Order: sequence, then C-alpha cells, then structure tokens
Amino acid sequence: MNEIQNLTERIIDRVNINLREHHFDVGPYVRGIVSPEKYMKFYAFYGLTSRHPVSLSFKNSALAGSYFLGKCQVDFSIVYKTDVRGDELKQKGDVFKFRGFEIPLHDDERIRIQDSIMHKTLVHNFSHDPESPEEFFIVSSVSLHYANIHGAPVEGSFFGPFATVDLTTVHDSVVGAYSYVQTGELMHKRIEPGQVWIASKEDGFDFRYSYSPDVLARYVKVNEGADPSGIFMDFINERKNDFEGAFALAPYDYNQDVPRGASVSNYSVLLGRTSLSENVLVAQRCYLLDAQMGVGANAQENCFVINSKLAGYNVTAHGGKIINADMDRQCFVGFNSFLRGLEQQPLKVGPGCIVMPHTIIDLREPLEIPGGQVVWGHIRDKRDLETNSMSIENLAKIQGEISMGGMRFQGAGGVLVEAFKHRIEHILEANGAFYDGDNNRGHAQDHERVSFNILQPYRDGARAGIYPTTIIQP
Amino acid sequence: MNEIQNLTERIIDRVNINLREHHFDVGPYVRGIVSPEKYMKFYAFYGLTSRHPVSLSFKNSALAGSYFLGKCQVDFSIVYKTDVRGDELKQKGDVFKFRGFEIPLHDDERIRIQDSIMHKTLVHNFSHDPESPEEFFIVSSVSLHYANIHGAPVEGSFFGPFATVDLTTVHDSVVGAYSYVQTGELMHKRIEPGQVWIASKEDGFDFRYSYSPDVLARYVKVNEGADPSGIFMDFINERKNDFEGAFALAPYDYNQDVPRGASVSNYSVLLGRTSLSENVLVAQRCYLLDAQMGVGANAQENCFVINSKLAGYNVTAHGGKIINADMDRQCFVGFNSFLRGLEQQPLKVGPGCIVMPHTIIDLREPLEIPGGQVVWGHIRDKRDLETNSMSIENLAKIQGEISMGGMRFQGAGGVLVEAFKHRIEHILEANGAFYDGDNNRGHAQDHERVSFNILQPYRDGARAGIYPTTIIQP
Repeated sequence: MNEIQNLTERIIDRVNINLREHHFDVGPYVRGIVSPEKYMKFYAFYGLTSRHPVSLSFKNSALAGSYFLGKCQVDFSIVYKTDVRGDELKQKGDVFKFRGFEIPLHDDERIRIQDSIMHKTLVHNFSHDPESPEEFFIVSSVSLHYANIHGAPVEGSFFGPFATVDLTTVHDSVVGAYSYVQTGELMHKRIEPGQVWIASKEDGFDFRYSYSPDVLARYVKVNEGADPSGIFMDFINERKNDFEGAFALAPYDYNQDVPRGASVSNYSVLLGRTSLSENVLVAQRCYLLDAQMGVGANAQENCFVINSKLAGYNVTAHGGKIINADMDRQCFVGFNSFLRGLEQQPLKVGPGCIVMPHTIIDLREPLEIPGGQVVWGHIRDKRDLETNSMSIENLAKIQGEISMGGMRFQGAGGVLVEAFKHRIEHILEANGAFYDGDNNRGHAQDHERVSFNILQPYRDGARAGIYPTTIIQP
Repeated sequence: MNEIQNLTERIIDRVNINLREHHFDVGPYVRGIVSPEKYMKFYAFYGLTSRHPVSLSFKNSALAGSYFLGKCQVDFSIVYKTDVRGDELKQKGDVFKFRGFEIPLHDDERIRIQDSIMHKTLVHNFSHDPESPEEFFIVSSVSLHYANIHGAPVEGSFFGPFATVDLTTVHDSVVGAYSYVQTGELMHKRIEPGQVWIASKEDGFDFRYSYSPDVLARYVKVNEGADPSGIFMDFINERKNDFEGAFALAPYDYNQDVPRGASVSNYSVLLGRTSLSENVLVAQRCYLLDAQMGVGANAQENCFVINSKLAGYNVTAHGGKIINADMDRQCFVGFNSFLRGLEQQPLKVGPGCIVMPHTIIDLREPLEIPGGQVVWGHIRDKRDLETNSMSIENLAKIQGEISMGGMRFQGAGGVLVEAFKHRIEHILEANGAFYDGDNNRGHAQDHERVSFNILQPYRDGARAGIYPTTIIQP
C-alpha cells in the first residue's frame, strides 16, 4: 500500500470516530474518487504578493491541483483541487468584535488543515468562531466536490458535494449534498441533503428551505466511490477541458490587459465576447463566456457566467452559476446558486435582488424578477417565483412565522435583511468594487501582482503524489 | 534603496575585504549588470525526484531564473540564472578517499551559497576538498557570466566571465575571464584572463596555456557594469530568444518521447533535424540545432550543438559549444570550449580525442584532427593544430618539460593522461551513458521523472525581487 492509500485510511478512521454517533462511514465516499495518477499529475500553487501575509507549511500531504494564499498549514491531509484562500485572515493586534466582546488577537490568524480530505472544496475568509480567532481549523473532516467552507472552523465532520458551511463552527456533524448551513454553531447534527438553513438564536430568526429529494436528485446525486451525477456535474464537466490551457501556462505573466482596478486570475477561463469593467474580480477556476461584467462586479471561485450581463456591483459568491441572464446592478447571487434562463430569452433580475445561497432558477419559460426581491429555492416559472420570493421590504417587516412552499421563516425578518445587506456591502468592499485609484483597495487590486509558487509532488516510489515538506516564510 | 541594492552592496563589501591584498574592487563588475525588473520577472526552479536528496533552504536572497537540485542552502545572496546542480553530492556514510586518507561523512553534503553574487554560473559536482567533505561552500564570492564552479569550494573570490574553477578549493583569489584552474588549491592568487592551468603538486605535473590578450579580447572582453562582449556573447545572444518558450511552459510534462534511457531537460531547446539516441543527456539551457546525438552522448548545461554529429559516448562539458563539427566516438570536449568548423566543411575530430577545457577551435580552413589526440588553445588552421596538439600516447610518455606555442608542460604526462581518462569514464558513467535498461543508471535516467517546484519573488515593495524564506525537506 502506498502512502496516499495509508493516509486516506488514516483520515477515514479519524473522521469516522468523530461521526460514530451518526453511524456514518465516510470511507465509501472518498475511496477511489481520485485515480492515483492524478495525485502525481497536478501541481499545487501558492500565491505570493507583497500585500498578503506569507506563511505556508505542508507536511505529509497530497495537494494535487490545490491553491493556497495567505497563512496556511496543512498536515497529514489530502487536499485535491481545493482553493484555500487566506486573504481575509485576521492579523495580530486586530480586535475581533463579537456581541459585545472585544477579543484582541495575540497572533496572525492561519488556516490549519489536519487529518482531512478536501476534494474540490473552497476555503475562504476567517474564523468567525470567537473561541478560535487566531485559527481557522479544519480537522478530521471530509468535504466533497464544490463544498464551501467559509469562515467556518470544522472538526470531525463530513460535507457532501455542493454543501456550504458559512460563518458556522461545525463539530461532529454530517452536512448532506447541496445543504447550506449558516447557524453560528452546528454541533453533533445531521443535516439531510438539500436543506438551506440560516438562523441566529441571538438575533432571533430562522430561515429554512428544503429541496424535495426528487428535485435534488436531478441536480446532484451522491454516488459512492465516484463523482456525483446530475445537472450540476454535467454542466461543469462539459466545460472542464477549457480549463486545461489555464493550468498549463507559465505562472509569471499576469493581468496585462484589464481595466483599471480589475483582476483576472491566470487560472480562470475567459471565452467569447467577454468584457470586463473597472474593479472587476475574476477568481481562479472561474469560467466566463460571452459575459459582460459591469463595474465592480465579481465572479468568485468556481463561478460560471455565460451569455449573461452583470450590470455592476454584482456579487457572484463562490460556486455561483449565471447562464442566460441579465442581472441588474447590485444583485447578489449566493453560494452555489444555479441561474439558467432561456438562451434567447434571458432571465431578467432587477436591481438589488438577493438570490439566497443554494437557489436554483432553471427556467422553462421566460421570467423577470422585479428589483428588490429576495428569492430562494427551486424556480422554473412564474408560479414557482410566487412561492419562492418576496420583496426585501416585506421580508424586513416579518415578525413571527410564515411558510411559503418549501420555505419556513420564523422571527425577525428585519434582522436577516440587515445582516444580508451588511454582508453584501462588505463583500463588495473586500473585493475592491469601490476602488477609486487611490482608496478602497480590495482583492481585485491586491491580486494584481500576484505570482505563483508551483509546488510538485514526488512522481514515483511509495511517496508518489505526496509533497515534500515545504515551509515558506516572509 | 531597495533590498536588492542593499544586498548587492553588502556582498561587494564582503568580497572586497577578502580581496584587499589584490586591491581588487568587484563593485564595478556587478553593479548594474541586471536591470531591476529582471529580478522580478524570472522564477527560480527546484528539481524534485524520488532519486535525489531533497533539501532546499533560501533566506534573504534573489534567485531570478536559477535552478536548484539536491541539497542546497542559499543565504543573503543574489543567484541569477544560475544552475546549482547537487546531483552528485556525497551522502552520509560515504567514505571520501583522498591520497591514502579515508574520510567517512557524518552528514549528507550540501551546497551552501552565502553572501555571494552568482551570475549565469554553473555549480556542479561535490566538494573535492578533503577538509570540507560535507559542505560545498561558496561564500563571499562573485562569479560572472558562464563561469563554472565545479567541485570547487570557494571563499572570498572573484571569477570573471567564462572562468572555470574545477576540483579546486579557492580562497581570496581573482580568476580572470576565460581562465581555467584545476590545481587542487588556489590561495591568495590572481590569475590573469585567458590562462588554462592544470596542475597537481602531489602527482607532479603542470600544464599551462595562455591566450594572447588580443585573441582573448576577440572572444571575450570584460566590460564594467555591462555584459561582456566578443564572439562568445554574440553567439549566445543571437540564440537567446529561442529559450523563451522553454521557460514559459508548464513545469509538469516531461520527456514524453525520447529513446530509452535518454533525458532532455524541459529547459533546453531542440531545433531543426535534431536526433537523439539511447542514454543521451541534454541538460537545461542546452541548445541543439540539427544535432545528431549518438548513444550515450551528453550535452551538459549551457552547451550548444549545432549542425554537428556526436557519434556516441561523447562528453560535452558544461558550456561546451560544437558548431559544424563531426565528432567521432568517445571524444571529450572540456568546459567552455568553442569548436566551430566551416558550415560546408565541418571540423572532423577522430575517435577518443581530448579537447582540453577552454579550447577555441575556430576554423578558417577545413581541418581534420586524427583520433587519439589531445588539443588545446587557439586553433584556426592546420598550422595552429601542429603547435596545439599531440597524441595522447606521446603526452603519456613525457617526463620533464616541453613547450609548444603558448603551452608549457612540466612533469609526468602519463599521470595527466590517466587522470583525464579516468575522469571521462566517470563522467560517462555518472551521466548514464552505459545504462542497459537495468544497470548503470545515471543522470540521464534519474532525471527522467523530475518535476519542478517553481518559486517566485516578491513583485513589488522594498523587497521586490527577493524571495520569501523557503524550506523544502523530504
């Protein structure tokens, strides 16, 4: 048995012991999903700029195709085609404010991945756990295809394909495929596939949406020992080959020809008549085809924007897909949402709409969503829209409980709306959408002069696919 | 002043204090030879295989365009487009035999570069100094364009362009342009440009050849604060653009289609009707155009083979250039030699010839060198050949002193011949020329599955061009 197999089994044991109360065995989900030669074939890359703290440490890990930025430490883990983006980590001396507490950081924050398997996962942002402000840990956990681990320290947990944990500390939990959890904490829970759950006990709101199993199975279906199947994976796989060129390029030319304040990752694909405006951010593994990106619009990791227009100051969160759509200004599209209009009659979304994370708008007739709406769930036509949206204004007025289709809301709608608005503003700011040439720098500007260290595994012998121990410090 | 400038001045001071007795100031030779943006533009690369010890450490250094293999440590240095090839370093437990002494190594050997500027230099092989078997140090020294530091630990020294120090420990010495020194030790000496000196007190021989200053100036002329000029640099610069593609490629495809046991560096250029045979080694920064490489022939770093045939088991040592030549089997071409026949009437070199290091055969009429000759110095026609060659057989018989043209030999010719033969055999062996598919592996075979870590400098700020501290361990 080679070292990667040993490592795989060791991690499976670690995760399973944490998940024993759920009688959940992660083994069948991770064994065999990567063919051995792929561990040798793909390099890992570490972004280097003068604007991000530099500190990388790998030990006894396989990192095929993964990207790292900022302060990261990886031990005894398999991190496959995963983005670990530590460009919003907190720094020594920062004060982390949390519900009246003010916690000064005694050290720079780092992302620590240990005894874990992460497969095509996105890790971003900082630990929102007030108990671990200096460490965004991902320990003894497994995450599958296109999962998002966003500001969410996790231990002993399993995340299915397209699952998202957002600003939530997760212990000993199972989060099913295409479930989204933003609840601050998640302890010893099992979240079935296709649940969208945004809640805050302290703030007194609880939003839930459940995909019906048959709808979910059409979009994403988990298969043991193999990739998931369904529309999401088909969609991604059809465009997979277009990325090959991006990863075969030399890593030292960058962004020669983009508008002021914009940045386009070397590791993204821009095709057709795609146009960019100032302060646009296109992150790695993004796919833009015939896309018009207005001022300050962003497409974060794993986003697809095809035959679509984003008017300006649009947020397309990690894994968002926008196809045949005309998005007005300041629309927010949440994690792993899938928006697909008709080719000749694009989905129209009015200004300032909030498309909740893990929303599927997959049209069978033309549809226009008026401005200022919040939308969720599965929408294929006008009738679906009626039960899967309301105006932000009306949501803000809710006090109490309402149900609409698969959605149930309890509590103070105004608090949820404020939280969302605040967050969208923060995302635009952080991404540099408001940069004026001098002030309000953000990721778009700070990634302008990134270069990439390319790190390679052993190619043969028992350690084939394992990376040598590597430490990079300022 | 930015950090690279600081570092440059600091190194200049360190070297000058060592060279104070020579009243030699290295400053004018190194200030301004690299334009600042080049430090940011080029990446460094570290070869990774399962067959070479892995250990790399960089601190506070600029490494633009440099290559490393094996155990290397670089501190407070500027290493520009330099190859540091630690694939023949000794290992812990090896016994270094030296004139009756047997010195067991208490640790793996490493190459340590400190407080030095190395510019387009080749560093290879192991420390032949019995006093430092575990460390091949290069400290407080400057080496210029296409210098070779070969098994030669150095301290406080300066090497001009195309200079070679070979199997020689060098302290507080100045070695002029295109001088070659293989004397075991060189202490507090100043070697004027264009001297070829091979000597061993213990073995009782001393070979010297001096290029006349006017001949030398045609081939290489040192210019303060700029690249050297002359035929050598013109020749290299005319072919420089052909290398750009090699360095722009992704670093993970290798050697798809070469004969058994052969290896061709990704970072070499093969053009025209070039053919390779089994066990051929083509190292990085080699340039082959219409070259026929016979079985087990090698072209080491910085070699050019153009419109030429190497019949088999040929050694082309680092920096050797062979243009319009027909080299029979087992010919040896020493470091930085320049052989150029007429385009329609190639230089013919018979089997088993030894072309001494730093030989210039630059024909103005057709010439054939019979087999079994040793040749040296500057040869343009048959008359020159008469005073610049003899049969290896006759050289072996010499006891005493002879002079021929610019050459003077004293001592036991037989010992020199034996040393050369032994060394050529070792080079072929080490390079894998005798590999039979199972046994006699060498560099050609061990480089088959090399992959490259690509390391990047800071691109902006005061540290622009400096590399972050990097440590790679098994």
